[in-house]
This record gives sequence, C-alpha cells and structure tokens, in this order.
Amino acid sequence: MSRALPGAATGSDREIDRRILEVFRSNEGVVSGARLSRLLAISRTAVWKHINTLKSLGYVIEAVPSQGYRLVSVPDLLTSAELSAGLPLQRIGTRITCLQEVDSTNLVAYRLAEQGAVEGTIVIADHQTGGKGRLGRRWESPAGVNLYCSVILRPQILPLYAPQLTFVSSVAVVDAILRTTNLQPVIKWPNDVLVNGQKVAGLLNEMSAETERVDFLVLGIGVNINMNREQFPVDLRHPATSLAIEAGRKIDRLQFARVLLESLDALYAAYLAEGYEPLRRRWLAHSAVMGRTVRVTSGENVVVGVVEGIDEHGGLVLSCAGGRHERVLAGDVAICNEGEACS
Amino acid sequence: MSRALPGAATGSDREIDRRILEVFRSNEGVVSGARLSRLLAISRTAVWKHINTLKSLGYVIEAVPSQGYRLVSVPDLLTSAELSAGLPLQRIGTRITCLQEVDSTNLVAYRLAEQGAVEGTIVIADHQTGGKGRLGRRWESPAGVNLYCSVILRPQILPLYAPQLTFVSSVAVVDAILRTTNLQPVIKWPNDVLVNGQKVAGLLNEMSAETERVDFLVLGIGVNINMNREQFPVDLRHPATSLAIEAGRKIDRLQFARVLLESLDALYAAYLAEGYEPLRRRWLAHSAVMGRTVRVTSGENVVVGVVEGIDEHGGLVLSCAGGRHERVLAGDVAICNEGEACS
Repeated sequence: MSRALPGAATGSDREIDRRILEVFRSNEGVVSGARLSRLLAISRTAVWKHINTLKSLGYVIEAVPSQGYRLVSVPDLLTSAELSAGLPLQRIGTRITCLQEVDSTNLVAYRLAEQGAVEGTIVIADHQTGGKGRLGRRWESPAGVNLYCSVILRPQILPLYAPQLTFVSSVAVVDAILRTTNLQPVIKWPNDVLVNGQKVAGLLNEMSAETERVDFLVLGIGVNINMNREQFPVDLRHPATSLAIEAGRKIDRLQFARVLLESLDALYAAYLAEGYEPLRRRWLAHSAVMGRTVRVTSGENVVVGVVEGIDEHGGLVLSCAGGRHERVLAGDVAICNEGEACS
Repeated sequence: MSRALPGAATGSDREIDRRILEVFRSNEGVVSGARLSRLLAISRTAVWKHINTLKSLGYVIEAVPSQGYRLVSVPDLLTSAELSAGLPLQRIGTRITCLQEVDSTNLVAYRLAEQGAVEGTIVIADHQTGGKGRLGRRWESPAGVNLYCSVILRPQILPLYAPQLTFVSSVAVVDAILRTTNLQPVIKWPNDVLVNGQKVAGLLNEMSAETERVDFLVLGIGVNINMNREQFPVDLRHPATSLAIEAGRKIDRLQFARVLLESLDALYAAYLAEGYEPLRRRWLAHSAVMGRTVRVTSGENVVVGVVEGIDEHGGLVLSCAGGRHERVLAGDVAICNEGEACS
C-alpha cells in the first residue's frame, strides 16, 4: 500500500536525525561535532554518519574546517522531523507518518485508525496514485509539488455531528493560505477552498462509527501548492489552480504544511473546548456563499436559494422562493451571478 | 479471524449438497439414487459420497433398501444451504457466510464490506469469542445455542439517516419472535428487544461513511435463543433471558433464522421503496416506551419525559416537565413505573 521514503531509517536513527536538526535550529551558525556528540550521547563517527544521511535526504550541511557543521538549507521534502520541529502541537501532528507514494493517504490513515492509531496521527504522502475526492471522484495528486495529508480524530460526538469537523479542515486551510501567501482564499460549501474563483484545496472526511458514537474520523486534505498548469487534467469538473500559479511564485511546501498543522491543532482544541459555534462563525467569515444566491445540485434534485448559514449538521440553510426555508445536506454548489437566470 | 465449519467443502461440493437437500425438500418421501444422479448430473458413487457428507454434518438420512434415500431430520446447525433454501430473498441473505467461531460477526462483516462484499451479504457464526455490544460493551455469545449474525447494507442515504436502519433489525427480530413463538416481544429504544421485561436481543449498527454518503452499514443482530440461565454472566447490566427460557421449550434455531432473514429482506425492500415512515410506524406499534415516562441516562446527562415518538435521525422525542420538548440521540432508557419517583 505504501513505500517508505528513500533513506528511511529505523525509529531510533530517525530520532537522532531529528535531534541533530533541532540542535541546528536552536544554534545559529556552526555547531561542532564534539558538541553534537555530547548532546546526543553518540560517537563522533555516528555524528558524521547521521550528517551524511541528512545530506542524502537533501539537507545542505556545510563542513567548516576545524569548527564543525552548519545547516545551510533544508530540502523541499516533507519529513516528520521537519514538519513538527519546534511546533507546540497538542494533538494533531504529535504522530506523523511521511510516505513517498501511497494509493491514498485517507486509506492508509483509515487502516491505521482501525489498528488503534491515537488521535492526531497524520499521514502525509509526496505522491498519491489513487487520490480520492468526494463521492468516489478522483483527486489529482502528482509527486513532489502538493500536500496530501490525512488526520485521524477520535472526538466523543454522535455521528450526526461529524460533518462539523469538515469545517476544522477548511478553516485551517484558509488560515494557512492567508499566513503563507498574499492570496484571498474563500470556502465554497461543503468543502472546497477557492482562490480567484478556482479550486486550490479539497477536503474528504471519512468516518467509522456505531449509531451512538464515532469510532474515528479521517480528515483528508489535499492542497494544490506548486502544481503547474500542465499538471491539471483537461476534463476537470470545476476550474482548479494552485497557490503557486495564483501567487506567481514557488511556495515553500514545508512551511505551508507546518502552518497548516498549527492551525488544525489550534482549531480542533478550540472545538473540543468551546464546541461548534466559534468554528461556524469562522467558516461563515470566509464563506464564498454566505448571502449569495446559489444553485445546489444533488443527483436529480436542484434547489435554488439565498444562503443564510450552515446548521449543526453541516447543512446549508437556504431561503428559497416564496419565503420557504430549505436545508441541503449534500450536493454541488454553483454561485449564481447577479442578473443571471439561476433557476 | 475465523474458522470454517467442520466438513466445509469447496464451493461446488457445497453447491451439490445444497441441491441434494433441495431435491429432498421438494419430494416428500424416498428419492432414488438414480434420480439424484440424473438430476444433479453426477455419478451414483458421487451421490453416495455427498449423502455421507450430509450425514456427517448432522443430517439424518435413511437408506431405504432398493428404493433410495429419505431425509429424516436436519441438524440444529446454521449452514448457508439450510438458511436460504427456498426463501424468495431479494437482497438480504443472497450471500451467506456461516462460520463456526469468530471474534465478532460485525468485525468479519466490516472487513468483507471493505473488500467490496455486495449488499445483503450476511455473516453468521455459531460462537463469538469477542461478541460486541453497544458502546464497547460485551455481548455474551456461547456456542451452539443462539443466533449471531451481521448484515451488510449499502443504502444510498446520508450518514445522518443511518440510525433509521437500526429499526429494520429491531422490527425484523420482533416479527421473527412473533412468527416462531407465542411470546410478546417489545422494543426498548434504541435497540433492545425485550420479552417479559428482559432482554432477548441486542442490535449493533456500524457504518463506514464519508460526509455525504454511506459507504456501507453493518447491522449486527444477536438473539438469545436457546441459552439457559446458567449461561448468563452474573454481572449483567440489564436483566436478560432467552426465547427458550420464556417459551419453556427449545426453539428451532434454523427456523428462527430463516424467518428472520425473510423479515429483514422484506422490511429493507419496503424501506428502499417507501422510505422511513412505514418502518417508523411499525417500530412504534411494538415499542415498549411509546407514551411511557422514561429516564434516559447518557454519561452525566439525565433526561426524564414522556415518549412522544422517534424522529428521522432515530432520536427519542420526549415531552418533559413544563411542556418542553427534548430530543435524545443516545443513552440508556429506564421505564418509570407509575407512582414511582423518576426524576
């Protein structure tokens, strides 16, 4: 189902790599081999071996004669050490599994959850061969350019309220885009994030539950970060873009992922402490549909109305012709332009 | 995870066994070996071998000299051939997997569903070593006496409405008890079936879903059929009994299971054709709580009120003190006796 990253090492070797990077981060400039050896309680030879491993993973580490080592740059590769280093994460991201290629991060996370993985466990992949979108659709997932990540949650809620958690991921993605670019993202119900009217992220929640309790949820998050125009399929259902295309520059994937983890962790903590209401308000503040006339299509059903809000089950509340109110729980939304016939 | 029944044969061998039993069923009295050989297009020796296999499975088959064979009795063993023979099943029970011992039929069914098992697939076991009840509780599952069965459904509904399907199983269990005994079963919300105030069946629904659609449901059904008093643990949360204890006679497990399959299949077909409303009415007609004052406990929360019905999410609708209406979606129900303080 999945392959480890090249150069993947045992748990303890990887832990030493992680700690060496931590030492570099907390010390500007050159760090002596003797210091690393002392801090990590490993031999000078072992320090040298780990430095070489890090170099093979794409870290540029300069050897300064008779002084030590200096970290010049980190690779544009998502590794668990780089992702969480120094972040004050409480739940989400406290365990991270980074994989080079998977069928789908949601599938891997679902299996891990079935085997008892703790809340907050994250699966990230560089490439998905069978990336999943909503309703059995495909999510285009080329290697090395985007973020594909799935988060395991175990909230003590009824399955009925699980759709609320979709809004944790959409608000977190918006937040991460705002904090790492000068773009203005908006959310289209139920779970798309748009920039300049085009889709840059898609979210897919899955759950395993019994009638009265959720066993686990998997929040799947796909963000088009550095994908270029040629990498999009021609037959897309909705116009799509990437952060790099819209911003006109390459985006630092690692930095984006770190900011996203922080946002997810903080939003989920707030949800557990304060419930749905603050999350709903933040979602509405970034919504592309609030107050707009929309047409929602679900199979044969079409509903047209003005969006008044979202309810406690994640449903879209519409004010329709004749003052009738309707709640829509599933479907594809089209925003109607002013003056255009929409029904 | 599971072991096959002793004497389990290959698919085609089992198919021949099934067809021999069909011939016996549709022919009162003695069937000649020559006739069986012709009807099944197998040799006389093969007929003789299959008759011996059936005998080893507990079928009593008499050899009538120079006339043929006569089926005297079938074993109290649940086999897929016996379970579905002659029943006009449309969906539920069209594929049956019978196992001697499993951890939990729900777990086996969940795995089968993940691997793509078709709607209506049923897993039945003679013995569960880790039978599951609601909310992580245990379901006592001794060998050879009860029915433990899990049904895979793939209705095209929102996860929000999945609790409605619990009522398919509780109404079907009531129906099967009414048709096979002279007992008067009632349903206690959310999912217990009681006889004379004691629990005879428990239902556990599980689901795998994304926000906007159910991937599959597993309806777990456990019915205490011929369990005796000594087989119940002493520390039961609620008083429990079996059909045999209450009826004062041994109940035919196979007949009960066949009637249950018929009821499940018919109720599910009606649900797909006509929706929730007829099912809700049937549930209410058998309800032990309708119109009664109940106390519902869910963790720290306690709600007391008179039951007015069940809503479209399976919630119990209560009329509480001061005319307030409350909906309860999870919890344990205690029925308050008249004149007794209940709050």
